[in-house]
Amino acid sequence: MTEPAFIAIDWGASQLKAFLCQPGVLLPKVLASASGPGVAAARGQFRQTLLTAVGDWLRQDATLQVYMAGHITSSLGWYQTRYLPTPCLPQALLPALVQGQCPDMALWLSTGLRCALPEGGDDVMRGEEVQILGLLQLAPELRLGRQLICLPGTHTKWVWLEHGEIRHFRTSMTGELYALLTQHSVLLQQAEDATEFCPASFIRGYQQMQGAAGLHWLHQLFAVRTGQLFGDMTPSQASAYLSGILVGADVRGWQANEPCAGDDCDVVLAGNPRLNFCYQEALQLAGFRVRTFDITDATLAGFGWLAQEQRRTGVIVTTGSAILGCQA
Amino acid sequence: MTEPAFIAIDWGASQLKAFLCQPGVLLPKVLASASGPGVAAARGQFRQTLLTAVGDWLRQDATLQVYMAGHITSSLGWYQTRYLPTPCLPQALLPALVQGQCPDMALWLSTGLRCALPEGGDDVMRGEEVQILGLLQLAPELRLGRQLICLPGTHTKWVWLEHGEIRHFRTSMTGELYALLTQHSVLLQQAEDATEFCPASFIRGYQQMQGAAGLHWLHQLFAVRTGQLFGDMTPSQASAYLSGILVGADVRGWQANEPCAGDDCDVVLAGNPRLNFCYQEALQLAGFRVRTFDITDATLAGFGWLAQEQRRTGVIVTTGSAILGCQA
Repeated sequence: MTEPAFIAIDWGASQLKAFLCQPGVLLPKVLASASGPGVAAARGQFRQTLLTAVGDWLRQDATLQVYMAGHITSSLGWYQTRYLPTPCLPQALLPALVQGQCPDMALWLSTGLRCALPEGGDDVMRGEEVQILGLLQLAPELRLGRQLICLPGTHTKWVWLEHGEIRHFRTSMTGELYALLTQHSVLLQQAEDATEFCPASFIRGYQQMQGAAGLHWLHQLFAVRTGQLFGDMTPSQASAYLSGILVGADVRGWQANEPCAGDDCDVVLAGNPRLNFCYQEALQLAGFRVRTFDITDATLAGFGWLAQEQRRTGVIVTTGSAILGCQA
Repeated sequence: MTEPAFIAIDWGASQLKAFLCQPGVLLPKVLASASGPGVAAARGQFRQTLLTAVGDWLRQDATLQVYMAGHITSSLGWYQTRYLPTPCLPQALLPALVQGQCPDMALWLSTGLRCALPEGGDDVMRGEEVQILGLLQLAPELRLGRQLICLPGTHTKWVWLEHGEIRHFRTSMTGELYALLTQHSVLLQQAEDATEFCPASFIRGYQQMQGAAGLHWLHQLFAVRTGQLFGDMTPSQASAYLSGILVGADVRGWQANEPCAGDDCDVVLAGNPRLNFCYQEALQLAGFRVRTFDITDATLAGFGWLAQEQRRTGVIVTTGSAILGCQA
């Protein structure tokens, strides 16, 4: 007997991604997919935005369970869920699932994770916890020993696993800053051509961030403009150069502050194809071996495990106090 | 006999500032002032924006000479003027003045400056050259020996003078990045209260950028959000903290790359009162002695010298090839 289909929603700051899934052994099969505006753009219209993305699927089968994770469960999102504290096993997400009070569908929300940083202060994630859960399904050997995981994106996460447990993690603003600088600053005046990417310019940007010169990154950023002013760089080259500056700064800064990021070290990288290329290039230039996964696979494997295990174990969490706030 | 009044226009990326001036010994007297949108917001309406700011003054006296400098003369502005190469004396701006082809007024444009950086690449300024000229009028002793000047703003300029000559300079994106992050990012969700500024939070941000932790600035930036999530910081404190991170990064990075920024070193600082406070605090924490000037005084003294000397010497520059482009 086949397992029933389900809907997986990864709703981040900049995009909503929805998948109608047929459960599989490790990776659910995607029967259909849809996308929509991210949390920032959808504010005030969360319910309608979600229905636009998945309404057709629900009209065909009203019993579909809907699993949702990401920025949408944050204080800036729709239903605000709690944070689980680290260290924690990603499997702990299952009993922590929260049911959203949504009349349109059976909606299950992931909690986020909160980590006390060794140097003081906290860090948080929303959505990546499901991707880490998925990575551990796709590659069970990652549950052994110490693992360094990089999930590049709007808010890149650098995660340290030990024996399958999430020990701590750090967020970098890399992707959000790239978007701000390409869309709103004086650095780039023409929209980049998304089909064009200049690896040589990316590497030049990476190299600018090494040594003492990289310490003055607020100055290095301005070279994205002067490089175009004097005809050395096209807008596409300039955007790859900017990407190299930011990814180079992220890798260098992480390496300097991660006690376990020594020599002879592997990094597990899970992003979209462009980000995987950029971070792989930068991490290899910095001396790391890199193993890459596709982030959509990781997301689907994580949601697939939650859907399957919730059905198998019958774990149901009541609504109520588990929802900290709701701003549809 | 009194000198005739003139109009000084400092038109930067984020604001137009106009002054109706009566010439004075060092500092012109401001008879009236006006402001308007910066270059980014005024694009396509440059002429109308300027007339809205200064039209009343011109209707009372059509013979007023108008002097203009800033981002407005860049490739993103109205009349694009050339760059003078460094090293150069700020007084060289006088014979390099360009007349704008404007039917409404006698409009004089400053050229920008272009500097070949010692490590390769170029840097540029537009508007600050008039402020440096003004500083040398206000404090003639700055024409002696080596002087380090910091002009904080949207694009902070770090300038190195020797015997009154501008040798080289570096631009930092500090102010533009602060504006982007406070207006468009997840870091701050409420507009800051401009009347409130928390020096302790600023210093905490500065301190975050020291040592190895500061190398991972893309991560440190995210602490502006987590600090608010867990109730440690109000939005006003968070914006001062972000300011401390950015100004701390700028000072640290400049210091690491400026061979003459050794110990026992003075910095001449000329910004608005808020920026003077922030940079003075950061520079003193980094071990520098600081001497501050008000940036409006520097601007007015620079334009005042140009107006007076142009009248005294009768220097007139023809229009034509000196204007590289015009996009009213």
